[in-house]
Amino acid sequence: MRRTICVIVASRANYGRIKTVLSAIDEHPSLELKIILEASALLYSYGDIEKIMEAEGFEISAKSYNIIAGENLVTMAKSTGLAVMELSNIFDTIKPDVVLTVADRFETLATAVAASYMNIPVAHTQGGELTGSIDESVRHAITKLSHIHFPANQDAADIVVQMGEDPSKVFVTGCPAIDVVRQAIDGPEVDLFQKYGGTGDKLNWCEPFIVVLQHPVTTEYGSGMSFISSTINAVTKVGIQTVWLWPNIDAGSADIAKAMRSLQARKRDFPMHFYRNFSPEDYVHLLNKTSCLVGNSSSGIREGAILGTPVVNIGTRQSNRSRGINVIDADYDEDAIYKAIKTHLKHGRYTSDPIYGDGRSAQRIAAILATCDLKIEKEFRRVGKKSTIGE
Amino acid sequence: MRRTICVIVASRANYGRIKTVLSAIDEHPSLELKIILEASALLYSYGDIEKIMEAEGFEISAKSYNIIAGENLVTMAKSTGLAVMELSNIFDTIKPDVVLTVADRFETLATAVAASYMNIPVAHTQGGELTGSIDESVRHAITKLSHIHFPANQDAADIVVQMGEDPSKVFVTGCPAIDVVRQAIDGPEVDLFQKYGGTGDKLNWCEPFIVVLQHPVTTEYGSGMSFISSTINAVTKVGIQTVWLWPNIDAGSADIAKAMRSLQARKRDFPMHFYRNFSPEDYVHLLNKTSCLVGNSSSGIREGAILGTPVVNIGTRQSNRSRGINVIDADYDEDAIYKAIKTHLKHGRYTSDPIYGDGRSAQRIAAILATCDLKIEKEFRRVGKKSTIGE
Amino acid sequence: MRRTICVIVASRANYGRIKTVLSAIDEHPSLELKIILEASALLYSYGDIEKIMEAEGFEISAKSYNIIAGENLVTMAKSTGLAVMELSNIFDTIKPDVVLTVADRFETLATAVAASYMNIPVAHTQGGELTGSIDESVRHAITKLSHIHFPANQDAADIVVQMGEDPSKVFVTGCPAIDVVRQAIDGPEVDLFQKYGGTGDKLNWCEPFIVVLQHPVTTEYGSGMSFISSTINAVTKVGIQTVWLWPNIDAGSADIAKAMRSLQARKRDFPMHFYRNFSPEDYVHLLNKTSCLVGNSSSGIREGAILGTPVVNIGTRQSNRSRGINVIDADYDEDAIYKAIKTHLKHGRYTSDPIYGDGRSAQRIAAILATCDLKIEKEFRRVGKKSTIGE
Amino acid sequence: MRRTICVIVASRANYGRIKTVLSAIDEHPSLELKIILEASALLYSYGDIEKIMEAEGFEISAKSYNIIAGENLVTMAKSTGLAVMELSNIFDTIKPDVVLTVADRFETLATAVAASYMNIPVAHTQGGELTGSIDESVRHAITKLSHIHFPANQDAADIVVQMGEDPSKVFVTGCPAIDVVRQAIDGPEVDLFQKYGGTGDKLNWCEPFIVVLQHPVTTEYGSGMSFISSTINAVTKVGIQTVWLWPNIDAGSADIAKAMRSLQARKRDFPMHFYRNFSPEDYVHLLNKTSCLVGNSSSGIREGAILGTPVVNIGTRQSNRSRGINVIDADYDEDAIYKAIKTHLKHGRYTSDPIYGDGRSAQRIAAILATCDLKIEKEFRRVGKKSTIGE
Repeated sequence: MRRTICVIVASRANYGRIKTVLSAIDEHPSLELKIILEASALLYSYGDIEKIMEAEGFEISAKSYNIIAGENLVTMAKSTGLAVMELSNIFDTIKPDVVLTVADRFETLATAVAASYMNIPVAHTQGGELTGSIDESVRHAITKLSHIHFPANQDAADIVVQMGEDPSKVFVTGCPAIDVVRQAIDGPEVDLFQKYGGTGDKLNWCEPFIVVLQHPVTTEYGSGMSFISSTINAVTKVGIQTVWLWPNIDAGSADIAKAMRSLQARKRDFPMHFYRNFSPEDYVHLLNKTSCLVGNSSSGIREGAILGTPVVNIGTRQSNRSRGINVIDADYDEDAIYKAIKTHLKHGRYTSDPIYGDGRSAQRIAAILATCDLKIEKEFRRVGKKSTIGE
Repeated sequence: MRRTICVIVASRANYGRIKTVLSAIDEHPSLELKIILEASALLYSYGDIEKIMEAEGFEISAKSYNIIAGENLVTMAKSTGLAVMELSNIFDTIKPDVVLTVADRFETLATAVAASYMNIPVAHTQGGELTGSIDESVRHAITKLSHIHFPANQDAADIVVQMGEDPSKVFVTGCPAIDVVRQAIDGPEVDLFQKYGGTGDKLNWCEPFIVVLQHPVTTEYGSGMSFISSTINAVTKVGIQTVWLWPNIDAGSADIAKAMRSLQARKRDFPMHFYRNFSPEDYVHLLNKTSCLVGNSSSGIREGAILGTPVVNIGTRQSNRSRGINVIDADYDEDAIYKAIKTHLKHGRYTSDPIYGDGRSAQRIAAILATCDLKIEKEFRRVGKKSTIGE
Repeated sequence: MRRTICVIVASRANYGRIKTVLSAIDEHPSLELKIILEASALLYSYGDIEKIMEAEGFEISAKSYNIIAGENLVTMAKSTGLAVMELSNIFDTIKPDVVLTVADRFETLATAVAASYMNIPVAHTQGGELTGSIDESVRHAITKLSHIHFPANQDAADIVVQMGEDPSKVFVTGCPAIDVVRQAIDGPEVDLFQKYGGTGDKLNWCEPFIVVLQHPVTTEYGSGMSFISSTINAVTKVGIQTVWLWPNIDAGSADIAKAMRSLQARKRDFPMHFYRNFSPEDYVHLLNKTSCLVGNSSSGIREGAILGTPVVNIGTRQSNRSRGINVIDADYDEDAIYKAIKTHLKHGRYTSDPIYGDGRSAQRIAAILATCDLKIEKEFRRVGKKSTIGE
Repeated sequence: MRRTICVIVASRANYGRIKTVLSAIDEHPSLELKIILEASALLYSYGDIEKIMEAEGFEISAKSYNIIAGENLVTMAKSTGLAVMELSNIFDTIKPDVVLTVADRFETLATAVAASYMNIPVAHTQGGELTGSIDESVRHAITKLSHIHFPANQDAADIVVQMGEDPSKVFVTGCPAIDVVRQAIDGPEVDLFQKYGGTGDKLNWCEPFIVVLQHPVTTEYGSGMSFISSTINAVTKVGIQTVWLWPNIDAGSADIAKAMRSLQARKRDFPMHFYRNFSPEDYVHLLNKTSCLVGNSSSGIREGAILGTPVVNIGTRQSNRSRGINVIDADYDEDAIYKAIKTHLKHGRYTSDPIYGDGRSAQRIAAILATCDLKIEKEFRRVGKKSTIGE
């Protein structure tokens, strides 16, 4: 009998980080795929992944609207609670053998809570990464509720094991986001204007351009407006054509959106275009062509490493994440950001670095899901004899 | 300005494990106490803690009915989601400086999620204990969302630190449940018949008697009926007078309650009495007098250690918890349970062992809450080669 | 294409009042039946209808645990809100052509809200009856959200039309509960002891016996204990063997249950037996044999009318409901109740009265559902001077 | 002891229709005001009423974020369920003597359900109006759950009484929205550009201008895009300067917003400006000056009547509402809308008509709330032969 693997896609970022795994599960003879769409993945303003996924041949088994409007800390917490309630109902209907949850967004913890409470084995990608902010705490809490771990690299695997997980359940598979890079880079390139519309001026893709993607940092809620302003000022000072991407739905995104809308209305001497969302493949091509990615998206550090994309990483959101030479860190400081962009523009692209995977993680993950032990009892593994901490 | 400490009491067990801390916070000149009652703490069938707490002089700041009826795995998960939603609202109203959460029940995770998502520092008692079952996973997930840790002993503290927590935020305070033992043991004893009623025969407190308290184990959902039956058979085979306590509200409690109700209706040659709930102090006196506690309550291992209570610990619920010589473990097996009880009855009480605290934890906890650093950013601490911690 | 009719069963009472309709829909060539179980229909303590329904050949399409524990006014309101949320999800999955909702319990309004907000036509049985209490307000609010009305008799239909509903959408079909009476009365009788267990003494079914069924009245929340006491005192004063039925889950049921549990524990000179629930058919036989039904259940007035059951109807719960000569009303007053019971015991059974239907409503309802106009736009019909309706 | 009156403000429209009552309650010596903000009233995109209210001196007692993002029929229903849950908690904390609910939006029913289920008397403004669409059904359902009625005029009062309400609880007070008109019209006029910003071209307020405000009609969900297109085409064909207002948050608003955003991006020969929200007073001045209001807002029919504003009322949303000579109805038809606008532009403003009130309703409502009978039992009043009411 085939194992039913239920994968939860909660956001546009989630989708890019799991889509090759979806295909690999779907094609595996011993596995049956059930996809649940929820949270911002269902919202028009955050990218409406449903249409993209259906166009790519995926069937959606269940949907859950569980984002409570407000985009602040209270509604973020409440949305997570609602997600737990709704996913519990859905799991009770689907009765999966394994629930696969992706990374670390606030709704992702809801998946792990609902499934583990219902005695359903939880598999987790991207565990063990260090990044700072609530995302990291959430990621580690998910690890402690999960049964099967698919960290991106050995460094992350070490962290998972240090937290007491059974090493025989920790599989270094690489990150599926890198699979997409490998596949996309040889694939066709589309006309983004035509495919996605967006708003703003027409850009000339043959000339150098900057891409900006800056998300709110929930542990810094309330400062988002001033933080995005440093970025906006630095980028407009550089003054070359720019692609702006709207932030995701964490608490604080309203502030960033407000600043971006005000930017849209302003006069300037260079073209700007604003996009909501791309397919993961199109985003890879964008990263592959841009002269510089500015912001705090993990894509700069992960996909950027293998692509050699020049990245200015701003602030605390990716604090401790392992990174390659393509990344220059900058504080929320106009000058620092400006200088980092100029350095990158002068240098050009970097050499490829596979620290987040070799682009073949999806097959590994599907194979493990098809055969691994699914028992739900966990036993904490101490590191050292009893412990040597502090000795 | 005084710090507002919000303490969540979610069950009768919670209350016993935190009440000395409630008093210590209330009396501390730099702290202001806000108590939230929620989950089974509000339900008549599970002990209706509210009246007891008010009688003992505590004021309740907010209440949240968030248990969804059904007592199965789905409703347990959904109740947790609902708790996240409602506690978020309450925290948004109270705006506490610290939220203090107790131990590891399924609702406890809800507290940690709501508070940490809202950038409120979370303090946690009883972190780092190893027990098996979903309780342990929940306990560790709470640790990863918490900022200040109050483990009961050094062994538990070592586990918390192994999981990457900052050692300077880990305080070995002892467990507040032991404070209650220390205070109660010199206090007055009440007539349980008169104070609590309950149902069944009159017991003679001057003769030897057994106490049974067996909770469902959620990761073994579906087997509760057969597991409790072994216990019932063994105890009735011993054939001395017995106090039976109703189980708590985890998934599976309905099965245990059903078996107990059927036991009530049967003929037998020795007296039995059934109780819903005691004040923590009265429960200490019961543990101090019983010839043997049978079941899987952690009270046998924790409070039982310092009292020297003979304990037969059944099954997996307390699997890896540190324990003293007063505990004999038995599988879900009538013979094994029977023999263990007989061994204890022959041996009598054991010497006192302070492995879970010296009875003075509440003052330590209050003092730390009044002065400790409250920043919410966390940094993972590696152990072993890759880290310099402890050097 | 067949019309999909989604029927919501929310309680044991609901089931008895709709089961012949379920069969008629299931058998109708143009209709497809989808059953949703929710609320107290899923709870063991309130009858666990699921097993009974499956034994009778019905397939359950979806379930929703949505009762928030507490049994007070707040949890009753919150449970209704939760039911709206969960039913919305279920309707979005099933996409029914019509939702059929039964009578007037607090969860029933949730069905009408969810369906009407989602542009799904709502059909409603038992609209237009006058009973006092929040049930009546809820029933009329449901009528105003419904599109197709199946009142039990012309009197109820007149009320529905007075409230502005389109007379062409109001069908006097009789109440399906009476269908059950007609079918059951010729069917086999079972041994209740053997089939249902229950607790208490053995009764002699050949001797006269009383049946008591008293529900809480939510608009009198807080007085339940004193109200049930009058009943208990009167019945025990009569002193003949008695069947006691546990109340349903409205706010206040905990008080009634408490009084009944205390009654169980008391000494007395006549046998008593306590039951949770019966199949509708077995309940009909009980009503058909009892010397007197005491309490405030509408079954005394509805099913009792056609069966000629002597009924003492207590208090306000059925205030204005049309009733036959088999009913003696009594206030919450021990003497009045006692006298009414004695009068009935002396008189014996009454002649049959078809005021709530002739036992053939299910076929009528199914036939209408198969063919009626399903448009969701409604237009208020004025009565009196400004309108010509009814002339 | 003063009566606590709890008023729920759920949207920007609500606020304008109740603000004079808020003041009147606040100033009344026998009343204490508690304001709850919820639903779209808390959302930036729908007007963020909180700041406006605080600036006008109102204190907010509680807030509830209960809008589930998605803006479709499922999320509308789910949001209502969530509102019931959260308002129940808030009412349990505030324990009001009366809950006052405004008009007929989908969240308004949540207020009536929560309060009536908790035995709290419900007072309701704007009951009895006929408008078509789900709004009307909701409005009548609220009436059946309410205890005290404040209809705007005798015609509406007749409808309330026809539905069986006790005439002694039906008070024709006029609509508080007209109070605002009366007060505002003599007050100062502000520079809308300066106060509200908005986006788009600068308008010349001394020249004729059109105002467009078109909300989605939930019973026509899915057709919003084509309906708003007729309006957009007609208005742009007229070709004079135009103020566009964003729609409210009902299911379908995303479609309208999308069409409006696309309109923003287009070239045209006349100026357009887009606003999110105005204070009620500023909106009155806008209505008082515009050459024509186009859309389906009830403000055209209500406030427009007393102001004599030329109004083109489109589609079904206000179908049966009583209206004055200032209103020309048009179907979703470009030509019809175009002709109606041209007719109004030629005619100019109309004479004032007080059909929705004389501007003094707030004092009446406060006085009645201070003294009226608050019993929660309701008795249905028959009209026609079987009753003597109305004779």
